[in-house]
Amino acid sequence: MMTEIKLDERLQNDCHVLGRIGRSAVLLHRNAGIAWFILVPETDCVELVDLPSDQQARLLDNINRLSQLLREHFDVDKLNVAAIGNIVSQLHVHVIGRNHHDYCWPDPVWGTSCGDVYSDDEVVRVQQLLIATIEEFVAA
Amino acid sequence: MMTEIKLDERLQNDCHVLGRIGRSAVLLHRNAGIAWFILVPETDCVELVDLPSDQQARLLDNINRLSQLLREHFDVDKLNVAAIGNIVSQLHVHVIGRNHHDYCWPDPVWGTSCGDVYSDDEVVRVQQLLIATIEEFVAA
Repeated sequence: MMTEIKLDERLQNDCHVLGRIGRSAVLLHRNAGIAWFILVPETDCVELVDLPSDQQARLLDNINRLSQLLREHFDVDKLNVAAIGNIVSQLHVHVIGRNHHDYCWPDPVWGTSCGDVYSDDEVVRVQQLLIATIEEFVAA
Repeated sequence: MMTEIKLDERLQNDCHVLGRIGRSAVLLHRNAGIAWFILVPETDCVELVDLPSDQQARLLDNINRLSQLLREHFDVDKLNVAAIGNIVSQLHVHVIGRNHHDYCWPDPVWGTSCGDVYSDDEVVRVQQLLIATIEEFVAA
C-alpha cells in the first residue's frame, strides 16, 4: 500500500499531484505554458547534499527518466534541472522542458507566470503518459 | 599533465577560473554578492541526462563537495543547485550559497546582478580554500 508523501502547502497549491516514482512524489506545475515536473523525495532533508547517497542516486535516476520523457513526448529544446527551495523549503527538484518559443524563453521560469492552465483531461493525459512510459510510476 | 577544458566565452567572461576537480572545471562567478560556483564537466553533452552514468555520479559527487564547502566556509542559509543552460549551451551546473540577507533573496540569482566584484586577493583566497579542503582540486 502506498503511503502519501506529505506536501508543503505551496507545492500543493501550485501543482497537480500525478503520483509517485518509488519514494518521490511527481507533480505537474499548474503553469501550462511550460512542461514542468517537480520531484519531491520522501525525506526530511532540506538540501540535496544531505540526502543519503542511495537516495541521491535514485533521485538522479528519476530526474533522468523525466528528462527523457520530456524530450520524447513534449516539444522541448532544452532541459532545466534545479533544486532551489528558497521559498518552499521541502526538498524538491524541478525538471523542466523549455522551448525557444515558450513565453519566457530564455529566462528561467521561476517567478514567472503565463495564465495558461491545464484542463482536467490534459492532466489525466500527462498522468497516463507517465503510466505508459515509466515502469515504476504509480498514479495518485 | 592537465589538459584544459575549453570554456564557452560567456562563462569565461562571467567567471574566474579557479581550477578543476577531476574532469570538471571549477569557476567562481564574478558576482561577489553571492557565493556562486559553477562546475563545467569535460563533455560535449549539452544535457545532464546525456552524460554517461559514471560521469553523472562524479558530477554529483563534486556538487556535494562544493555544497559542503559552501555551508562550512561561507555564510549560507540555503543551497541552490541548477543546470539551466538556456543561454550558454555548454553543460554547466550552478552550485550557489544563498543567504537570507543577500541582495536578491529569495529570488533566483540568474539574470540579476549587484555590482560587487572580488579583488584578486579574494579570488586567490577562495582558490586556496579549495586547495585546502578538496583533495582532488587542482588550481588553474
